[in-house]
Amino acid sequence: MTTRPLRRYAYCADGPEIYRESFAIVRAETDLSGIPADARHLAVRMVHASGQPDLVQDMRFHPDLVSAGRATLLAGAPLFVDSMMVSAGITRSRLPAGNEVICHLRDHRVEQLAAAWGTTRSAAAVSLWGDELEGAVVAIGNAPTALFHLLEWICEGGPRPAAIIGVPVGFVGSAESKQALIEHEAGIPYLVVTGRRGGAAIAASAVNALAGGPS
Amino acid sequence: MTTRPLRRYAYCADGPEIYRESFAIVRAETDLSGIPADARHLAVRMVHASGQPDLVQDMRFHPDLVSAGRATLLAGAPLFVDSMMVSAGITRSRLPAGNEVICHLRDHRVEQLAAAWGTTRSAAAVSLWGDELEGAVVAIGNAPTALFHLLEWICEGGPRPAAIIGVPVGFVGSAESKQALIEHEAGIPYLVVTGRRGGAAIAASAVNALAGGPS
Repeated sequence: MTTRPLRRYAYCADGPEIYRESFAIVRAETDLSGIPADARHLAVRMVHASGQPDLVQDMRFHPDLVSAGRATLLAGAPLFVDSMMVSAGITRSRLPAGNEVICHLRDHRVEQLAAAWGTTRSAAAVSLWGDELEGAVVAIGNAPTALFHLLEWICEGGPRPAAIIGVPVGFVGSAESKQALIEHEAGIPYLVVTGRRGGAAIAASAVNALAGGPS
Repeated sequence: MTTRPLRRYAYCADGPEIYRESFAIVRAETDLSGIPADARHLAVRMVHASGQPDLVQDMRFHPDLVSAGRATLLAGAPLFVDSMMVSAGITRSRLPAGNEVICHLRDHRVEQLAAAWGTTRSAAAVSLWGDELEGAVVAIGNAPTALFHLLEWICEGGPRPAAIIGVPVGFVGSAESKQALIEHEAGIPYLVVTGRRGGAAIAASAVNALAGGPS
């Protein structure tokens, strides 16, 4: 294909203009009054990624989430994620210090560990994050068991991340795992979407907004 | 970490059991009466991936979508996708013929083509799909411009896919591109989520259900 096909539909094909229009619509339709001022660009991107302005009603931001998360990324800390979809959704060029994005789901040790411990592969993969997790940023967009496992590990003195984006999706354990993050004794700054909604696109959009700074 | 941390929360950590419970909840809460019988396992997986039973109200299935899409995958046709997140969400072990999953978004020609044509990178990437697209399965979960471009190309005699999963997400062009797919003159079997909702997770879940057959 060496020529562009004839335009038959009236649509905007200018990438930056699509972004501008999209964010203008999101800002016009979304009530950001309940969101901390320094977190509104995250909320906007999460609404954009989900197509749902009412997602904002379920967002819960710890007051230090953005300041802690952003400082951590600027300092070069890695990002730990629970799924390849979250990893694929993170725009590497936005990361302020070429930060590494780490997912252990396909590590060869995961299968065996999950079987030995009687848990999911997602939870077993979390246990491989290791000491680098200390002071890092976490984004969980898929598995409630990964979030539960992380919170249990922290209780036992495991490495303590600087910020946790906890937005697993689904019908079994998702709402409960996010509530557990909000109430967790370690008091680590969090971002949560309460209830069943969440997912890799929402997790990645929050990371991308955090990484890029206010826009 | 060589031991599993102490369980502090009451949650199911058995992967297959989580799936069973999740799908049972989805089936109990979702009104599938408007969905063709052979497409209900797709609807269930899409609801599961989104955490939203009411997503079913916006689903539109062409009557031949499942039969055409499934036969095509069984015959070994490739899958063309518009984003790395869709690709990352497709479970390769479910694909019935080791089908190739193809995304050209990171192809070196995309940037130049998009600039020359005054279109998005996502649309330019579609134009690189080539003759292999004939009789293949398409899944668009991100960019409305990719779907518009594909429909325009088909109008000009471009390769004709066997089935199109068209679920781009967002506020600019998303709803319109999906309506254009439903009304397209070529009559290619489609799956659409009308309106603004959609996304990579929904696209990938539809592919995974189509690939695995009824469960």
